[in-house]
Amino acid sequence: MTAKNTERSISIDTPSVPVAELQRFITLVLTATGMPPEDADTVGAIMAQADARGADAHGVFRLPAYVKRIRAGGINLRPDMRIVEERAATALLDGDNAMGHLVMKRATDLAIEKARRAGIGWVGTRHSNHAGPAGLYARMPLVHGMIGIYMAVGSANHMPPWGGIDMLLSTNPIAIAVPAASRPPIVLDMATTTAAYGKVKALAQRGQTMPEGWMVGRDGKPLLDPKRSDEGFLLPIGGAKGYGLALMFGILAGTLNGAAFGRDVVDFNKDYKSVTNTGQAVLAIDVTAFMPMAQFEACIDDIWTQMKSSELLPGAGEIRLPGEQSAITYEDRMRDGVPVHAELRAALDALAESVGVAPIA
Amino acid sequence: MTAKNTERSISIDTPSVPVAELQRFITLVLTATGMPPEDADTVGAIMAQADARGADAHGVFRLPAYVKRIRAGGINLRPDMRIVEERAATALLDGDNAMGHLVMKRATDLAIEKARRAGIGWVGTRHSNHAGPAGLYARMPLVHGMIGIYMAVGSANHMPPWGGIDMLLSTNPIAIAVPAASRPPIVLDMATTTAAYGKVKALAQRGQTMPEGWMVGRDGKPLLDPKRSDEGFLLPIGGAKGYGLALMFGILAGTLNGAAFGRDVVDFNKDYKSVTNTGQAVLAIDVTAFMPMAQFEACIDDIWTQMKSSELLPGAGEIRLPGEQSAITYEDRMRDGVPVHAELRAALDALAESVGVAPIA
Repeated sequence: MTAKNTERSISIDTPSVPVAELQRFITLVLTATGMPPEDADTVGAIMAQADARGADAHGVFRLPAYVKRIRAGGINLRPDMRIVEERAATALLDGDNAMGHLVMKRATDLAIEKARRAGIGWVGTRHSNHAGPAGLYARMPLVHGMIGIYMAVGSANHMPPWGGIDMLLSTNPIAIAVPAASRPPIVLDMATTTAAYGKVKALAQRGQTMPEGWMVGRDGKPLLDPKRSDEGFLLPIGGAKGYGLALMFGILAGTLNGAAFGRDVVDFNKDYKSVTNTGQAVLAIDVTAFMPMAQFEACIDDIWTQMKSSELLPGAGEIRLPGEQSAITYEDRMRDGVPVHAELRAALDALAESVGVAPIA
Repeated sequence: MTAKNTERSISIDTPSVPVAELQRFITLVLTATGMPPEDADTVGAIMAQADARGADAHGVFRLPAYVKRIRAGGINLRPDMRIVEERAATALLDGDNAMGHLVMKRATDLAIEKARRAGIGWVGTRHSNHAGPAGLYARMPLVHGMIGIYMAVGSANHMPPWGGIDMLLSTNPIAIAVPAASRPPIVLDMATTTAAYGKVKALAQRGQTMPEGWMVGRDGKPLLDPKRSDEGFLLPIGGAKGYGLALMFGILAGTLNGAAFGRDVVDFNKDYKSVTNTGQAVLAIDVTAFMPMAQFEACIDDIWTQMKSSELLPGAGEIRLPGEQSAITYEDRMRDGVPVHAELRAALDALAESVGVAPIA
């Protein structure tokens, strides 16, 4: 919650860029790297959505690194994605090392199609790549009257098994999205670590310190300087429980699909060339396989009301539903644009020049 | 981990009862209450498994409360369980207020059957009841070469939404079980709260205090005396994240099935008569819908090896895999029996007398 509030507060002093302009820019840059225009359109739309929804560590912020990977040959721009296993309610999609957004868009569309007939669709991916915020893919089934669930193997290991110090696990996130009637959908989108690594990097960029509980050093002592994050590791939520969740989501999204997990995970921040063999899993659940849609949505509205109207703990400001902040941010940013701070703007201007396109207007 | 170690340590000074004798006793008591013998057999086997696997708060310990509920008319002993919605990969099972173990056994069997054809099976329940440890149902698909996932709405609200003090959420657990080749299956079985309420009650019974972080009072301050647990509430793992998980698992296992969630949850420790309308969800995932079984099991063995061979954090004893302690306990207890401490033994002897059966041998 703290980090989300921080994201909001920086918008006050930071110039903003309209979401449509961001999308146009991302698409243009990707096209200039040789990506087919239709694919660049898809990735641009998803990345701009990430920014619009407040996932600042997963939108245009990632563009320079994506371009670096494309130039290093670490992404296949002419992928031949294939369904390698398929049953009525399941599929395994080999992404052929395409941009993760393209693999996940295809996987999610397939899960939705399967859920329409079978009630549920579960699609796993391998040879995928970093695909941006988990919540975006969990949200995709919503407009089809479905619940979405997404799990992924994170793109770099920053956590040891509980009690150890070897970095064998990532922040392996889960996202779950359920539709409401007159309220925003409830959308949980969380890393299984106390903090996502992107938040650590964001604090480092701003010269701030980390709260205790985010990271510890290899001596087990709290690590507070985000610039020294290489010397320690992220902590799981709930101690052994968060370790268990990271392990299980990694097995379901990675191992089961023949994707990388454990020591095989490539650190995408350090190695731009190797095939990451990233794995993800997406589920779509057709609400009408269980109850009429209107009845379910009314129940979710009622859950909103129940939670929001709870008496407050002394000192607490308000009760939030998962996804509520993102819905507020989305409204703000679709109207006012996405705050792009000076360091990011400079990086994007340099990127524009290096690929030979006009900078953000 | 602490609580599990505590469970082991009490076995040293506590007389043990063979698992088969426990099972026989549970079945006999339930039959004496009027439950059909075949159903009593099923429940007895599952409850004894809970004890054998070390889930001390979910096995024979619950028998007096179950009998109290049966006598109060809070359980339907002649249920007509019905599949009320069904698609190729999904079903909604109405348990007709049967014992939860019977509802969940039927739901899990159905999920396995669906997964065999469709690749995955997701079965939701309503009008179910408390069914014992989450892990048991997640384990059931394992012998069929499948992964199991189980979620439930807990049977009493002990947690407010994050920032609030109204008890609208339970410990809503998740369990995930995956098969290995030469190692025990990896089985995560966890409440979304720092501690399960059963563990609080167990400490109260032993006159011990709770560690900080388990509960806080309505003033937000740490609550350490488990006998005063009524004055406070359980804390979620990872703050707002654990609240989000409890909320989402509650929606998936409860709301989606037309089962109780939020303010509608009946506190089964205080009200023995009302229909609880408990909801659960179970998934079976056929591994062979993704990869050959032997290949997957070998990968899980390798994950065991990777995690176990990580260098240790200074001061840490060893690295555990989820389900490892339970596998050790299972082996111990199948050989040496289940420790039944004096207070529990007295309660079971009184129960035996009240239903007119012989006490535990």
